Amino acid sequence: MTDVPKLEPVTFRPIGVIRTPFTATLGMPIQATAAVGVPGWIDLDPDLAAGLVDLEGFSHLILLYHLHRITAPRLTVTPFLDDRSHGIFATRSPARPNPIGISTVRLIAIVGSTIEIEDVDMLDGTPLLDIKPYIPAFDDRDDARIGWFTERLDRLPETRADARFEDQPRS
Amino acid sequence: MTDVPKLEPVTFRPIGVIRTPFTATLGMPIQATAAVGVPGWIDLDPDLAAGLVDLEGFSHLILLYHLHRITAPRLTVTPFLDDRSHGIFATRSPARPNPIGISTVRLIAIVGSTIEIEDVDMLDGTPLLDIKPYIPAFDDRDDARIGWFTERLDRLPETRADARFEDQPRS
Repeated sequence: MTDVPKLEPVTFRPIGVIRTPFTATLGMPIQATAAVGVPGWIDLDPDLAAGLVDLEGFSHLILLYHLHRITAPRLTVTPFLDDRSHGIFATRSPARPNPIGISTVRLIAIVGSTIEIEDVDMLDGTPLLDIKPYIPAFDDRDDARIGWFTERLDRLPETRADARFEDQPRS
Repeated sequence: MTDVPKLEPVTFRPIGVIRTPFTATLGMPIQATAAVGVPGWIDLDPDLAAGLVDLEGFSHLILLYHLHRITAPRLTVTPFLDDRSHGIFATRSPARPNPIGISTVRLIAIVGSTIEIEDVDMLDGTPLLDIKPYIPAFDDRDDARIGWFTERLDRLPETRADARFEDQPRS
């Protein structure tokens, strides 16, 4: 409808790092709901620890993080859950124009600037960009249509990641 | 538990811009669930339009965007919904160390690189960073504790934003 204005690049400084058992993409669970009970922790920048006050009252955290192994985005991908190609914005594939990941994890404990969590589905050493409290009244919708996922969600429990998105783009 | 490694800044290029009726922060709804039916649209970078293939099958989109009016983060804030201060990571306040916003909006239609949406709760002209399909099986949890929000969610329908987070930090 209107021209897209010239938008300036935005630079963020990671607030910490996510520690997980996953040192390589191959074999990782592809969503937090396929990683129930997998333990990890966040090493937050100690200078930001004052930002954690009252976080212990929440059971789940939304983590935003840099998918730092993505070297080149793709506009169409065949995601882990399907055998067919889709537009990148119709998938949760990491090979996005802006590789920002989102996972809702379980909060276990906070000790100083270390946050113990469970249900981690990201690589060890992932740079963390933000922590938000998960609020179902803000984040959940009860009448969602989920497109091609409708026929593919049953594959989630046994689907594991591979390195397909770490390659250079083939298209 | 471990030292936080030196983490490099990350730069993202906005993929488009979000158009809404809100030209100033004052009086805006503070969450998408308090903005039901408010119409807006996304002007996506036309070079990325191929990434929208199959997106029309989804009823809701998770938008990640740059909270571009935030000039200085705070570690503790008194959020719109409460009268008491909390650590920034225990709130959904925009004045975060990395001002990335997240909203789940309703998808109405896609025409070329224009995406018509509803339930918008962000400023007109907000730079868009990512579009993800909303998948309840990935994004919802059914046993969440929500800390201080428990006693404050009833304020959401009538709470509107003000400019408090656009000021310079006072602490």
